[in-house]
Amino acid sequence: MSLTHLLHSCFPERLCPLKSLTEHLWFEVPDRRGFINITPKIEKLVHQSGVMEGLCLVNAMHITASVFINDDEPGLHHDYELWLEKLAPHAPTTAYRHNRTGEDNADAHLKRQIMGREVVVAITKGKLDFGPWEQIFYGEFDGRRRKRVLVKIIGE
Amino acid sequence: MSLTHLLHSCFPERLCPLKSLTEHLWFEVPDRRGFINITPKIEKLVHQSGVMEGLCLVNAMHITASVFINDDEPGLHHDYELWLEKLAPHAPTTAYRHNRTGEDNADAHLKRQIMGREVVVAITKGKLDFGPWEQIFYGEFDGRRRKRVLVKIIGE
Amino acid sequence: MSLTHLLHSCFPERLCPLKSLTEHLWFEVPDRRGFINITPKIEKLVHQSGVMEGLCLVNAMHITASVFINDDEPGLHHDYELWLEKLAPHAPTTAYRHNRTGEDNADAHLKRQIMGREVVVAITKGKLDFGPWEQIFYGEFDGRRRKRVLVKIIGE
Repeated sequence: MSLTHLLHSCFPERLCPLKSLTEHLWFEVPDRRGFINITPKIEKLVHQSGVMEGLCLVNAMHITASVFINDDEPGLHHDYELWLEKLAPHAPTTAYRHNRTGEDNADAHLKRQIMGREVVVAITKGKLDFGPWEQIFYGEFDGRRRKRVLVKIIGE
Repeated sequence: MSLTHLLHSCFPERLCPLKSLTEHLWFEVPDRRGFINITPKIEKLVHQSGVMEGLCLVNAMHITASVFINDDEPGLHHDYELWLEKLAPHAPTTAYRHNRTGEDNADAHLKRQIMGREVVVAITKGKLDFGPWEQIFYGEFDGRRRKRVLVKIIGE
Repeated sequence: MSLTHLLHSCFPERLCPLKSLTEHLWFEVPDRRGFINITPKIEKLVHQSGVMEGLCLVNAMHITASVFINDDEPGLHHDYELWLEKLAPHAPTTAYRHNRTGEDNADAHLKRQIMGREVVVAITKGKLDFGPWEQIFYGEFDGRRRKRVLVKIIGE
């Protein structure tokens, strides 16, 4: 047995302490807009990764959707819906030059900038290091088709 | 002495190059809203972590507060206050369905989405890698109680 | 040859698995506002870093500029321009207390909060792990001078 092999067998983890996990989550929201609590899915992936101390990136892979952290309270989600529609109205669709491309989703590109593309969450002692009410949401602003969220976990 | 112990004593750092630090900072803003420059606290933690090259995540652990990077200029903070109140007014509190839960802070959940939950800052040569005017702020939108910010540093 | 030297020569990478790259990109937008697609520059740096699995942070180093991910479609950029001007108008400049400092860029500090300071992008199998239309932009809101973007890549 060479020294190389001997060391590998002695220190499989300590010689490669960086762990990573990559996963794509798919969603199909039946309406144009909607919010989905994806926290349990992310918790499961953190556990699966074996990472004890590290960072977890969760981002929308589409530019008319968001990932954000806020409260799992239906009244608040209703407020977000009205508020985003006030700040970046869907209609009249002709008000947006982007919609001349044949799309009708310019407002969704604007709404996503307000709510954000991504969150980065700390992993501490193997768990998402969260405050009392933090929950991760997928925010859809142009649904009725299959779209993806990326989860990337790195740490040791 | 086994080979394992010999190697550990020879390479304590090189065998575990990933360092991490986790710290919770507590704040109690006496008014409903306010901005606190937390840069010196974060700089101290970066130094304490011993990380020379890495990333520093700073995030609000409450969903009615923000962590953001901008200018430490009181006139600008006054402008932010007026602007956020225009985009997401506190009153009338009955305009928000979230407030039917007994809360009066729906506007704070909206303001926090504009200003953001978190920042990720590069650590280069042991320091926050900042432009000339970048300063990290805790933004409170529903204060008068103790709330937390999480600092997570990883790197080598 | 000592055991230390022997091990270093056997395991140069495995003993130091964390790689990092730091780069500053300079831009000078000739007008007050503008969007620049910086994706090819970031892709080149990811390749150069040799990182196969990790995270790539890209942030504006100035507080009147943004880095964000959205569509490379000129009609949409026109819509962003009008929308941001509606949410945070440049004029009248006297409406902002920040401008009493002699600046005329208070609106740029507000616009940057809507569009965001930074993006964190996953690196998977040596490449930016992107959805079909994701492109990274530098968003300038107070141009006509040289300003910087920071790229920090860490991983293995």
